[in-house]
Amino acid sequence: MISVVLLGAGNVATHLFKAFSKSDNITVTQWYNRTFSAISSYSNVTNITDDLSQLKEADIYIMAVSDDSIAQLSKDLPFANRLIAHTSGSVSIHDMDKKNQRAVFYPLQTFSKDAELDFSEVPICIEVTEKQNLQLLKGLAEFIGCKHYRINTEQRQTLHLSAVFVNNFTNQLYRIAHEISDAKSINFDILKPLILETAKKVQDMSPYMAQTGPAKRNDKKTIRRHLKQIENEDYKAIYEILTASIKKTHNFL
Amino acid sequence: MISVVLLGAGNVATHLFKAFSKSDNITVTQWYNRTFSAISSYSNVTNITDDLSQLKEADIYIMAVSDDSIAQLSKDLPFANRLIAHTSGSVSIHDMDKKNQRAVFYPLQTFSKDAELDFSEVPICIEVTEKQNLQLLKGLAEFIGCKHYRINTEQRQTLHLSAVFVNNFTNQLYRIAHEISDAKSINFDILKPLILETAKKVQDMSPYMAQTGPAKRNDKKTIRRHLKQIENEDYKAIYEILTASIKKTHNFL
Repeated sequence: MISVVLLGAGNVATHLFKAFSKSDNITVTQWYNRTFSAISSYSNVTNITDDLSQLKEADIYIMAVSDDSIAQLSKDLPFANRLIAHTSGSVSIHDMDKKNQRAVFYPLQTFSKDAELDFSEVPICIEVTEKQNLQLLKGLAEFIGCKHYRINTEQRQTLHLSAVFVNNFTNQLYRIAHEISDAKSINFDILKPLILETAKKVQDMSPYMAQTGPAKRNDKKTIRRHLKQIENEDYKAIYEILTASIKKTHNFL
Repeated sequence: MISVVLLGAGNVATHLFKAFSKSDNITVTQWYNRTFSAISSYSNVTNITDDLSQLKEADIYIMAVSDDSIAQLSKDLPFANRLIAHTSGSVSIHDMDKKNQRAVFYPLQTFSKDAELDFSEVPICIEVTEKQNLQLLKGLAEFIGCKHYRINTEQRQTLHLSAVFVNNFTNQLYRIAHEISDAKSINFDILKPLILETAKKVQDMSPYMAQTGPAKRNDKKTIRRHLKQIENEDYKAIYEILTASIKKTHNFL
């Protein structure tokens, strides 16, 4: 049994609380947040507090707070030589106060409060300053059904950057398609199976091998016609830069 | 029962042949291709030919050939006043020879020869020059389990353009992430669940609502750090243009 004190009440903290609560091998001893009201509705399922001086003993203290709050919160913890972890993709493990043993427990996924999420599909990236804590972090990931990967800070920061490409930027391309088709009264539902299939395809095939379309074929006629169709100058520039990128990848530039 | 003569042997033709063959309500009377060898392995399941003068009677002739071949093939057909359809996202319905009744049967999906595809997930965009043929095209889509949408040529061309954004460009973002993470010896598998979840999220939520990340939050510190991390100048430019686009969509520019 691993005992956890959870700190923070954002999307990651809330999803972690739910995942931990479902496991028979993890007990959330306490949930801390500096604003009590954000977690008060959970008072019947765990001990909740907004007072750091009241923190209970636990095997691990997980700080699922915003990047800018991690360093200060680690300083404010009223104990030493216990195991603390943050959940950020970009904050260095060394930004936490070294009075405690430090770790990172970074779930690489997109979290929305509303969207239901199958946590067992979330890969956990693990980092530790003391090797003897590795087993506990791996256990924590396994008890909530997650694959885990041991990576260093530079790799984690690179993953965080890569995630912006495959998540935020991809989603913005969906947004642009939504706008373009809306303008011609086209039901966005028509594009949804294609969006899903594009993501499924690279689960077993490299993105390089999966590529198709006018840029990959260097089909200048279609590219010219598409550029004529786009009215928004920003979207035209995005079409051009990504078309050039595909051409370069596939040796046409 | 709808009888079909299929023309062409590319990815779309091959996937259509398989889907039609599975249906009890569709019979593929004949399969034509100008190169016999590409379809010769199907000679035991349907009549095959490379000779247009040998084309049999059917309810509909589906030309699943490259965009540039559609107009000429429609001229070369040795009959008139029958129903013909092309499967292209971008060729106008009026580019086909008007000696026949014309239609479009455009499956909006990404087709690879290798990748298995659940055809029932493919939306079919339908267009006709003679309204009385609409029922037959709708029936054809329904018999292979597909949703269908009646759209005009301008809408179809807009969908084709939108598909480039959500499919080819998105796939290139996956490719860039693959390259960036490979360079730091990171297993690309770690990013796959995020890729899938990003696509799943917009099945029930608008891309606008689904957006997260540093650009959406206008988190200048993270954006600056990411730009420092990217070594490839092309990828830096893509990061900048898509970050600016997200900011504009969410009112920070």
